[in-house]
Amino acid sequence: MKKMKGVVISGKGKLEISENCPLPEKINPQGAIIKPLIWSPCTSDAHLCETGCESLPYLLGKAVGHEMCGIIEEVGEEVKDFKVGDKVIVCAVMPIWRTLEAQDGHAKNRQDNMYAGIDYPDRGGSFVEHYYIRDADMNLAHIPENVTPEQAVMIPDMMCTAFEGVKELNPKFGDSVAILGVGPVGLMAVRAAILHGAGKVFAIGSRKVCFEVAKEYGATYCIDYHNENYTDEIIEKNGGLLDGVMICGGNEDSIDKALSMLKNGGTVVNLSAYFSGKDIPINPAVWGFGYGDKTIKGVGCGGGRLLMSKMAELISNHRIDPSKIITHRYYGMDKIPEAMDLFLNRDRSLIKPVIYNQ
Amino acid sequence: MKKMKGVVISGKGKLEISENCPLPEKINPQGAIIKPLIWSPCTSDAHLCETGCESLPYLLGKAVGHEMCGIIEEVGEEVKDFKVGDKVIVCAVMPIWRTLEAQDGHAKNRQDNMYAGIDYPDRGGSFVEHYYIRDADMNLAHIPENVTPEQAVMIPDMMCTAFEGVKELNPKFGDSVAILGVGPVGLMAVRAAILHGAGKVFAIGSRKVCFEVAKEYGATYCIDYHNENYTDEIIEKNGGLLDGVMICGGNEDSIDKALSMLKNGGTVVNLSAYFSGKDIPINPAVWGFGYGDKTIKGVGCGGGRLLMSKMAELISNHRIDPSKIITHRYYGMDKIPEAMDLFLNRDRSLIKPVIYNQ
Amino acid sequence: MKKMKGVVISGKGKLEISENCPLPEKINPQGAIIKPLIWSPCTSDAHLCETGCESLPYLLGKAVGHEMCGIIEEVGEEVKDFKVGDKVIVCAVMPIWRTLEAQDGHAKNRQDNMYAGIDYPDRGGSFVEHYYIRDADMNLAHIPENVTPEQAVMIPDMMCTAFEGVKELNPKFGDSVAILGVGPVGLMAVRAAILHGAGKVFAIGSRKVCFEVAKEYGATYCIDYHNENYTDEIIEKNGGLLDGVMICGGNEDSIDKALSMLKNGGTVVNLSAYFSGKDIPINPAVWGFGYGDKTIKGVGCGGGRLLMSKMAELISNHRIDPSKIITHRYYGMDKIPEAMDLFLNRDRSLIKPVIYNQ
Amino acid sequence: MKKMKGVVISGKGKLEISENCPLPEKINPQGAIIKPLIWSPCTSDAHLCETGCESLPYLLGKAVGHEMCGIIEEVGEEVKDFKVGDKVIVCAVMPIWRTLEAQDGHAKNRQDNMYAGIDYPDRGGSFVEHYYIRDADMNLAHIPENVTPEQAVMIPDMMCTAFEGVKELNPKFGDSVAILGVGPVGLMAVRAAILHGAGKVFAIGSRKVCFEVAKEYGATYCIDYHNENYTDEIIEKNGGLLDGVMICGGNEDSIDKALSMLKNGGTVVNLSAYFSGKDIPINPAVWGFGYGDKTIKGVGCGGGRLLMSKMAELISNHRIDPSKIITHRYYGMDKIPEAMDLFLNRDRSLIKPVIYNQ
Repeated sequence: MKKMKGVVISGKGKLEISENCPLPEKINPQGAIIKPLIWSPCTSDAHLCETGCESLPYLLGKAVGHEMCGIIEEVGEEVKDFKVGDKVIVCAVMPIWRTLEAQDGHAKNRQDNMYAGIDYPDRGGSFVEHYYIRDADMNLAHIPENVTPEQAVMIPDMMCTAFEGVKELNPKFGDSVAILGVGPVGLMAVRAAILHGAGKVFAIGSRKVCFEVAKEYGATYCIDYHNENYTDEIIEKNGGLLDGVMICGGNEDSIDKALSMLKNGGTVVNLSAYFSGKDIPINPAVWGFGYGDKTIKGVGCGGGRLLMSKMAELISNHRIDPSKIITHRYYGMDKIPEAMDLFLNRDRSLIKPVIYNQ
Repeated sequence: MKKMKGVVISGKGKLEISENCPLPEKINPQGAIIKPLIWSPCTSDAHLCETGCESLPYLLGKAVGHEMCGIIEEVGEEVKDFKVGDKVIVCAVMPIWRTLEAQDGHAKNRQDNMYAGIDYPDRGGSFVEHYYIRDADMNLAHIPENVTPEQAVMIPDMMCTAFEGVKELNPKFGDSVAILGVGPVGLMAVRAAILHGAGKVFAIGSRKVCFEVAKEYGATYCIDYHNENYTDEIIEKNGGLLDGVMICGGNEDSIDKALSMLKNGGTVVNLSAYFSGKDIPINPAVWGFGYGDKTIKGVGCGGGRLLMSKMAELISNHRIDPSKIITHRYYGMDKIPEAMDLFLNRDRSLIKPVIYNQ
Repeated sequence: MKKMKGVVISGKGKLEISENCPLPEKINPQGAIIKPLIWSPCTSDAHLCETGCESLPYLLGKAVGHEMCGIIEEVGEEVKDFKVGDKVIVCAVMPIWRTLEAQDGHAKNRQDNMYAGIDYPDRGGSFVEHYYIRDADMNLAHIPENVTPEQAVMIPDMMCTAFEGVKELNPKFGDSVAILGVGPVGLMAVRAAILHGAGKVFAIGSRKVCFEVAKEYGATYCIDYHNENYTDEIIEKNGGLLDGVMICGGNEDSIDKALSMLKNGGTVVNLSAYFSGKDIPINPAVWGFGYGDKTIKGVGCGGGRLLMSKMAELISNHRIDPSKIITHRYYGMDKIPEAMDLFLNRDRSLIKPVIYNQ
Repeated sequence: MKKMKGVVISGKGKLEISENCPLPEKINPQGAIIKPLIWSPCTSDAHLCETGCESLPYLLGKAVGHEMCGIIEEVGEEVKDFKVGDKVIVCAVMPIWRTLEAQDGHAKNRQDNMYAGIDYPDRGGSFVEHYYIRDADMNLAHIPENVTPEQAVMIPDMMCTAFEGVKELNPKFGDSVAILGVGPVGLMAVRAAILHGAGKVFAIGSRKVCFEVAKEYGATYCIDYHNENYTDEIIEKNGGLLDGVMICGGNEDSIDKALSMLKNGGTVVNLSAYFSGKDIPINPAVWGFGYGDKTIKGVGCGGGRLLMSKMAELISNHRIDPSKIITHRYYGMDKIPEAMDLFLNRDRSLIKPVIYNQ
């Protein structure tokens, strides 16, 4: 088996450039191989690194990464809409489209694992020289001409998560919305809420670098959660309870916080993952004792070509410039560990890093 | 002030016929006075009685009750659609319709308290000789000719709660639905789910009398929750996870039970009230770790004339016969305490009692 | 090329048993060959026959038919959920699931033509001895044990059309609904409307045989459209304008008729096809002059395994018995022309015929 | 009866300042009298003027006008949320909120006529010195501090119509939308579509002044309808059929034009009124022969305090600046006829005029 370079987790807190990642060779008739143009590490990559892949043991020693754009190097014979040389966005979440889940409108509930393809279980993630994807026509999207690679690489996870969440929040024109946690996904959610008609938007965070982008995206108020009465502050500034709350950070107590700011009839969308093993406690009083018409949705990142193309349309038509959240730019795969260190060190100047392939 | 007879809670576990309830005299131009034809006590009345009105101290010594149909005795001068002698269904939940909440599609979030009218704070509930309602045109509904009083008295709370819940569950044609708790509201939910297209319907309970009605209403399977693996049993019988779950009973652990039977992308509707003061614990694993597209809605009883009229249409057109859940019939207000004892004694032959006024 | 028997249109009004239909031989890895158990001709087959395939000239001389259930004779190597001997329902509308249309929730807008498979353009319809389908896992459904073949063969078009229409009509509990045209699809729509919560249901038609089934399915009123004031009659019986109207028959003037019975804020769902080449005239006055919040939807038959399975669930759980609309039963393919004559002769005793394969 | 000044239509094409409009004196306990700060004439006012109130004969000789903001001069004793001196936006469409229509979510289908109050039938429109409104708490909205009167006066009709239409169009993130007719409502619709997630937005019109504002609001392409192949041009620029089309102008043929650009599964929202008495012809071929899943909605202007407040929130939070469409500003009621002449003369520099009260 031929080998290639990739970025692997080799132990707790250890991220290495490996020369031993398996080079994709056999290609599905509907598949494609993509040479990365740009990568972006994610909090979840950092979490895997810190824990030595505790939640995904099979990934240890394999390549990480799931946010990438690149150029097509090879396509299977049945691929219709993509050809060698095309610049593409690669899905983080890769739904399988010939499934009953897809027929039910929940395609993402049957996925081609982002770290282990069905027909290529050793593949790992996309921080490699050549990345294989099983279903090109369904799970790649073209990068429009006026969209840059660094804008495009914000689509597969940052935009597809935040915009999917706001779609489920479904604010009406003029509604008040709070975004609890304005890291990179939360900032995309700020913009998404505005592009879904929100009036007052509360960006809840603590870091100046994030608040500045929140303002540029149109947030009405930036609220520091270190103020322990911040929910009261928001309710007062809003002139009453909120129409909707998005959770893009925090911990098991965040849902109660969100519910306590929410009007009866409102919706909380949760985009956070809960892996601590602890229960999430809901205080009945903030949930209207169970009959207050408050809805709680736990929403995951969306995927597929159409969704990514629609996100690219938003960038191409100047509805959003996701490159505003990029705070660090590197050149060459070898710099990925350095970029990852920003997460591991909780660097307060970091929102999102990208690494250009050279 | 003139007085009338009514059923009052006079202490912990004490339900009495009082001669001292204030007779409604002053009547709002939009209001009406109704002479009851039939009453039905509810679990929540029993709960108030058991605790001596712990959660609603101002109700102590005032009349209880919120499920009643009657005949109009008097109407205010501005009432347009109702006249003396009309047989009517009286709202349990009485939304106020000139509110921003109503403009927002959540009228019930601003209510004329069922136990204390805005313009008649001492009124109490409807287990009285003459019941006053502030807004007749908006919160009464006519009883259609072919609907009996005992069918009609199942509308204000039993049907308006269950059907509102199923509306929010929004099952699609052929979907599988479980009803956790098949007391009177749960049984209405069984029928409502079928009238909203459900395929397999699982009625989860323990009492034979309830299971029999569940079957008559069309439940596919009756499942005893004393079987500690009942959720596995349901999943197996269904051939997979469920499309939707309604909670119409149980306790703080029921939501986890419901989520554990629910497919990703599915919805849990909760119709239970949580007054124990304890947190509701959500295990992240059954909630898809927060990103499994599982929705939790806490829904309350709906109200208003239109909703009640639509429920009456369902009865009148033979879509449902809610009198099937009536297991006990009494005659005369004096028998209301005896009917209430059925609840207090956890009588296993009880689903729902009614008391005809004589 | 080997040959088999099939029912073909050989000219205007000419339906023949042919021995020259091409036998399916090459089979896609995801495909299957089905031996019919039962067929049912459709009005659209009759229309093709009458016109000599005017609207689909390539079908002339090829097999017709799109309502069929059968037994699997052969499956491709990649088929996972079906095996030889399985009894299955065959899609009339066969969506292609690896498409952007499917990602957009409109799978049926890219179809594997019911009369000409993508990889088998000469195939024609399913009134043959052996029918080939390209994507078994996605477009076949198992017949549940307690569902009969003649019930099952009502699913692919009759139920999938009517229930899809009612899904789009989306009546609320207790809503009033009129079904304009109670032939076989209209009768399914009567039942579907009731299974979606309708209160009063008006079945508009003229034939006694249809009205009888409408009543059995729960229609409140049967209205003869020969009464030229039938819309007034309906409005009077309903006590006002309707919440929803389904069009399952009629002509270019039906939409105006439907709008004239519809309340502002209501919906008309059209299930008819308009091939006359004439414009459909909308009188602004009945459409609220364009701003009355009246919605007009033109809805087509749904397809795919999930939808058909859900329909089968409805039958299996006794929510509907579609065999009630079957008025004529034949045995042997040779009888198909005789069954078709019922349509061509406008036989007033006909609702729907089936032909068992022998 | 006391008199006041107002702008009345006194005959075909005749608009006059009258001193004989009845001064509102008797005031409902829930009502209010508003002294105008600013008025804006509408195309429909011009149409009434041109035809001498043909469609509303009772308005002849009474005040016209329905777009106005002002200061409260007097409130009824039951008014809770407004007081003398408050700056308010006055509904054009004034729903009656204690109605079954409101309970059904269609409040606007029972209105207190904008030109003839229920309790003040001679009132006429709002181009007067003192305007009476029957239900202040429900149908007025406060002007936020950072919103100017000329921004606010674009709310009652221009924004409430366009945003209501886009709400019904319900575009998804990145969807392509065409606005057919970019006069003042169409331009608001351009912005509304963007604030509801639209990607490519096609502004179809002909006047430079409108195209410039369309661009400022974010339209992707401005398309001249004088190009007789403009629908082809749009489809080509979009790379396929559109997801949604709004009709904000045109004539009876516009719906066919819209349908011809629309994908199967898409929606056309019509905001135009059709008073010519001519039928609207739908060509079945562009409507998918009736089964292409193309939806046509005829939507009217929304009203009520909540909706207007939400629109004000959008302005206050800088989501839209509706004053961009104001091309002409006048001072004093006496200038209203001059402003109206812009419409009557089809002035190509006009989008929308306002008149400040002095």
